[in-house]
Amino acid sequence: MTPTPNTPRGFRLAGLHCGIKKNGKPDLGLILCDAGATCAGVYTTNKVVAAPVVLSRGHLEARRGDTRAVIVNSGNANACTGDQGMADAQQMVADVASALGVSPEAIQVCSTGVIGAPLPMPVIREGIPKALAAAAPHQGAAFAEAIMTTDTRPKARAAAREIGGRPVQIWGTCKGAGMIHPNMATMLGFVITDAPIAPDDLQAIWARVCDRSFNAITVDGDTSTNDTALILASGAAGGEPFTGADLAAFEDLLLPVARELALDIIRDAEGGSKTVTLTVTGALTSAEALQAAQTVALSPLVKTAIHGEDPNWGRIVAAAGRADVEINPNALSITMGDVALYDRGRWRGPEAEARARAVMQTAEYTITLDLAAGEAHATVYTCDLSKDYIDINASYRS
Amino acid sequence: MTPTPNTPRGFRLAGLHCGIKKNGKPDLGLILCDAGATCAGVYTTNKVVAAPVVLSRGHLEARRGDTRAVIVNSGNANACTGDQGMADAQQMVADVASALGVSPEAIQVCSTGVIGAPLPMPVIREGIPKALAAAAPHQGAAFAEAIMTTDTRPKARAAAREIGGRPVQIWGTCKGAGMIHPNMATMLGFVITDAPIAPDDLQAIWARVCDRSFNAITVDGDTSTNDTALILASGAAGGEPFTGADLAAFEDLLLPVARELALDIIRDAEGGSKTVTLTVTGALTSAEALQAAQTVALSPLVKTAIHGEDPNWGRIVAAAGRADVEINPNALSITMGDVALYDRGRWRGPEAEARARAVMQTAEYTITLDLAAGEAHATVYTCDLSKDYIDINASYRS
Repeated sequence: MTPTPNTPRGFRLAGLHCGIKKNGKPDLGLILCDAGATCAGVYTTNKVVAAPVVLSRGHLEARRGDTRAVIVNSGNANACTGDQGMADAQQMVADVASALGVSPEAIQVCSTGVIGAPLPMPVIREGIPKALAAAAPHQGAAFAEAIMTTDTRPKARAAAREIGGRPVQIWGTCKGAGMIHPNMATMLGFVITDAPIAPDDLQAIWARVCDRSFNAITVDGDTSTNDTALILASGAAGGEPFTGADLAAFEDLLLPVARELALDIIRDAEGGSKTVTLTVTGALTSAEALQAAQTVALSPLVKTAIHGEDPNWGRIVAAAGRADVEINPNALSITMGDVALYDRGRWRGPEAEARARAVMQTAEYTITLDLAAGEAHATVYTCDLSKDYIDINASYRS
Repeated sequence: MTPTPNTPRGFRLAGLHCGIKKNGKPDLGLILCDAGATCAGVYTTNKVVAAPVVLSRGHLEARRGDTRAVIVNSGNANACTGDQGMADAQQMVADVASALGVSPEAIQVCSTGVIGAPLPMPVIREGIPKALAAAAPHQGAAFAEAIMTTDTRPKARAAAREIGGRPVQIWGTCKGAGMIHPNMATMLGFVITDAPIAPDDLQAIWARVCDRSFNAITVDGDTSTNDTALILASGAAGGEPFTGADLAAFEDLLLPVARELALDIIRDAEGGSKTVTLTVTGALTSAEALQAAQTVALSPLVKTAIHGEDPNWGRIVAAAGRADVEINPNALSITMGDVALYDRGRWRGPEAEARARAVMQTAEYTITLDLAAGEAHATVYTCDLSKDYIDINASYRS
């Protein structure tokens, strides 16, 4: 699950500086799937959607079995840019498609960075041929750098195992600094694999995996206009598309890659110093479990208590109480790490609290909240709320 | 609408230190309605509810037309205190009821302060007879001080006018420091009036007024286990209960009192320096208008932009986009004060932004967001998110 030098077969990648970022850092990334790849995508649910998301979503609906390239720029989100923004996204697609001699629908396009400014198309259009020329199997690290905005480090994870007698490799990268930067449009995730997966299976697996990884991280509740997570499967591992147990084995290999990438976003949260896995159990339904988990995870009072390493169970109880889900107030339980802090409606006393505080002084730990109302559960990943978050987000954009 | 020395007729009040607070400040308050008062209440919707709220809500359901007293302690919320907490709340009621020779159902009881600790009943039981003895018509200021917890100042508002040929007086107080203090259970509001109002009318008016005042302030989204707002109407102004235009005139007199009290909570927000009136227009329904307004008002990114005096319209657009209500993304408009910053989907440019920033440099201003989807509107009141909020809420409770 650590990054490996082995890029899944069937892909070439590139990352370079074309001139969008003023600081000279890489700002244009490319994934090429020369023989075509099955593609699945999960896009932002925000009703304000950036042009590249609208375009890519349409391309994927039209054609999921033969995607040839993903072109990504950082430094500018091409969001809230009106008709010009859509024309620019189409131009980026057209430049890649015509160079490859394929249909525009075979291209996915993503942008991330400042909202509201037009894309600097001349430098992007000069950069695209350079990226096409530079693309190579082992350029994953360059691609990972090219998609960064406020991230302090590139994020990449990989996994490999034999499935159905075939050696399967998965590699992924993502960007997003957890705390959303002023006026930035934030989360992008890309996973490539050489496993052979049919389009419908890939979309179903990817939706499930994203729900348990990228969609399970809650930093400040503010979703972006550009959030996109894509997976491409080249099938270069050979053979017929996986079915049955092989498909399940592939999902088992994929989930931890996506989850660690998602956690890397929390770990890189600007202003965040804690990575907390929050599990709600005893909910009436899975949806209610998720709703309660998100309400607790996003509570500013809970997040400041996490920051202050304060086992303040009262705030968790109060957040659960306002989550608008079924709970049994007199039988709630809260566990920090392995410390039962609040047990079926009763505080376990100062000794338990001292042990819970020791858990909270570590960088990564779990909180479990039992609603005592049913059997369903859900897990989300979150971080603390710190003064650095205010500093970063209250400073003027210029 | 400023505090007046005239307490509405039919009431006596008291406030004193009985010994709950270690710092010697007032911590026990009493409102007496010697001839009985009509009472209406709005209580927390949190599913974790403190014992005094459960008890008072039941009393009010059983008997709305003849409330004789409200007993309030600060310094301890009597929340998450189990069976002992309910017994203690009943004891407070019983002590007042037996001294007055009335049914327990004629008494409302409220507690505010630390969660999870048992009430210090001996000092409270010693304090109750003293409060009964001290109660006098002009002790509103003492009562207002006795209900404070982390408030930096007492909050009181009053209004008076002739309605239906009778001189009507309204006086109110509330407590709540906006930003909820570590482990504190927070908002209490009390309004007394000598207007003659029938129980059903008073409850209907109070519910509407609270929706537009105490329930329209959003600080951090965390509701408390103890939030309670009560109104008592003694009828001492004389005559039959108001009907028709007189009732409407009373509501018109009451609403600004409650709204200014609610705004006083925002103005006293620990860590807050801005008081923002956020109005959403152009929503499909009133409920959707309110949902959009609350989503924008609670967005940490919007709140930090307010703190940083940054007219960051992109964050407001993004928050509106995730509010799960009908919007027309291409026709949204945002106005700061009287400055059109974002007009039907178009940024109005740097000059408008500079003027919007000047608006945001003032202490109290309005933001209007037009969703361009319908005709409904809603208003909420909010404040900024500052480093002081983190300091206050991340520090350990002890």
